Amino acid sequence: MLDAQPLCHVGYVLDGAPQVTPTLQWREGDHVYWHGSSASRFLRAAVANPVCMTVTLWDGMVLARSGFHHSANYRSCMAFGTAEIVDDPTYKEASLEAMFERWFPGRWPMLRPMTTQEVKTTTVLRLPLDEAPVKVRNGPPVEDEEDHALPVWAGVVPLSIVAGEPVDDPRNVHGVTAPDHAVKFKAG
Amino acid sequence: MLDAQPLCHVGYVLDGAPQVTPTLQWREGDHVYWHGSSASRFLRAAVANPVCMTVTLWDGMVLARSGFHHSANYRSCMAFGTAEIVDDPTYKEASLEAMFERWFPGRWPMLRPMTTQEVKTTTVLRLPLDEAPVKVRNGPPVEDEEDHALPVWAGVVPLSIVAGEPVDDPRNVHGVTAPDHAVKFKAG
Repeated sequence: MLDAQPLCHVGYVLDGAPQVTPTLQWREGDHVYWHGSSASRFLRAAVANPVCMTVTLWDGMVLARSGFHHSANYRSCMAFGTAEIVDDPTYKEASLEAMFERWFPGRWPMLRPMTTQEVKTTTVLRLPLDEAPVKVRNGPPVEDEEDHALPVWAGVVPLSIVAGEPVDDPRNVHGVTAPDHAVKFKAG
Repeated sequence: MLDAQPLCHVGYVLDGAPQVTPTLQWREGDHVYWHGSSASRFLRAAVANPVCMTVTLWDGMVLARSGFHHSANYRSCMAFGTAEIVDDPTYKEASLEAMFERWFPGRWPMLRPMTTQEVKTTTVLRLPLDEAPVKVRNGPPVEDEEDHALPVWAGVVPLSIVAGEPVDDPRNVHGVTAPDHAVKFKAG
């Protein structure tokens, strides 16, 4: 599930109040990783404090014969813990390479190498998946037995994330076309 | 944006630690609403404490010619504040009706009325949109001028939420077909 849905929401406490920031995560082994600018207030606040990273796949709307039994189909994972900074520059860059391999296989070797300054101004965080309960709801509505006789349509409207055709950057070098990892990108 | 994307993530603090719970929101005027079971620990913890509700539309992956300038296109709104319970049963039920009208226009009058017990065991919360900053990133990659000469494909992989064909509940009364509000449901 974590591999299928990069979008995540990281919750942390700043001056006593909750903050929920969307970002993209990737998993390696028993950790989830995310990254951003080293100047980011969000990343600094998320370090060495408890965080909750939630990943959600919204799979559908569930329409029942009564208002009360309407629901949503989804899969979600809430990972709780304390994030740590991936400090070592070599390991940090290897983590970013792993992120590329997860989302865009084969792209990393096509790119110019990161500069020392770029690596320095990127912060990578990781969170162990020690406490990461998963919740799932799927299937048709579950409702009161007597309501099945009502002549009201019930069922599920399935929802999914769809990747469209890649849009070329207007400044692409002439003749360069979208590679497989862009054409076949998939989430959800 | 809030009207286009019901999926939200509500952050609150429980015993000093952040919790981020996915749920569905709807907007009426200058408030966002969400609901659930009155027994829900999540809803009880979110009341009378500061919360942060974040709504995110993930619009695409942005592929640049350098690893560093890769990004994501998105729209997000973080609403901060203190949630209040919609206590009055009449107003509570009217709020739920408004939710149906937002997502499934015309469905509410087709359903059997909610029972008093159903209204009682449903908790509706609302949060004023007083402090709700929006962030947006769109368009092609922005990168170092000299990198434009690299023969690497750059561009955007657009992402969207797509609703599929409604799936009939196996126990639908014979001859009942999916209404427009199910066929035309749209998010994103």
